[in-house]
Amino acid sequence: MPRTAETASFKFNHTMIRVKDPQVSLAFYQDVLGMELLSEKKFDDFTLYFLAFTTTGASSPPRRRKSVLELTHNHGTESDPSFQGYASGNTEPGKGFGHIAITVDDVEKACERFEKLGVRFKKRPSDGKMKHIAFILDPDGYWIEVVPGVLDL
Amino acid sequence: MPRTAETASFKFNHTMIRVKDPQVSLAFYQDVLGMELLSEKKFDDFTLYFLAFTTTGASSPPRRRKSVLELTHNHGTESDPSFQGYASGNTEPGKGFGHIAITVDDVEKACERFEKLGVRFKKRPSDGKMKHIAFILDPDGYWIEVVPGVLDL
Repeated sequence: MPRTAETASFKFNHTMIRVKDPQVSLAFYQDVLGMELLSEKKFDDFTLYFLAFTTTGASSPPRRRKSVLELTHNHGTESDPSFQGYASGNTEPGKGFGHIAITVDDVEKACERFEKLGVRFKKRPSDGKMKHIAFILDPDGYWIEVVPGVLDL
Repeated sequence: MPRTAETASFKFNHTMIRVKDPQVSLAFYQDVLGMELLSEKKFDDFTLYFLAFTTTGASSPPRRRKSVLELTHNHGTESDPSFQGYASGNTEPGKGFGHIAITVDDVEKACERFEKLGVRFKKRPSDGKMKHIAFILDPDGYWIEVVPGVLDL
């Protein structure tokens, strides 16, 4: 179905998840996954962090990227002993959201590196039937699917 | 921080949410938001639907888009009277995931159209302090932030 004039300008901008400790999450998304922190907006009770995979190669337009991840930090969760943590969305109660997914050129190699860096896995490539994909967990337990770059639509 | 060779190929591919009734959700994401159904993968117990905002204008590469939304339908939920529905991620229990966001050229105009089409609002532009943004609800109650295109990073 062709897009109509009414929706022609609509674009996917970002996906937002809440995180317990931004320092831990920023280290993960920047150092482990290689995303870049685009901006940070601090409010009284919370801070928003916007990250993306940017492309800085000479043959690409500067800072070109496909989509943005927004991390919301409600101040205090990182040091509150009664804070229960956030739901990944994959188990009851709270089932709904599933995961975000990244493509990588070489899933095996990427997962060997994740393993060395101490990343937790939900599913290693060798687990189950789907040998070509993996699921890793971010610091809050959100699932991140790791799929081959050939699936980059 | 520059991207290293180890993560240079990594890209954001998609965001996945579960939906109760794919016919209702597909109508919403295609007809109301203007996304295109890129592909559909049927398994024994579930079906995956991949959607994106595509660009088919003459000046753009064919089917160029920024990011993909994956809808997972676990067969049977659409007709199961005991199915409780999915969690939006914004209330306890199950707080975690927040929303996806789209940019539109004209938030007011887009929201007038959403209103006419019977879309449910979490926050109309006129509600609260942030007059330039809105939050609509998808058929399962997931929040979709509607922000001005000038914020398209």
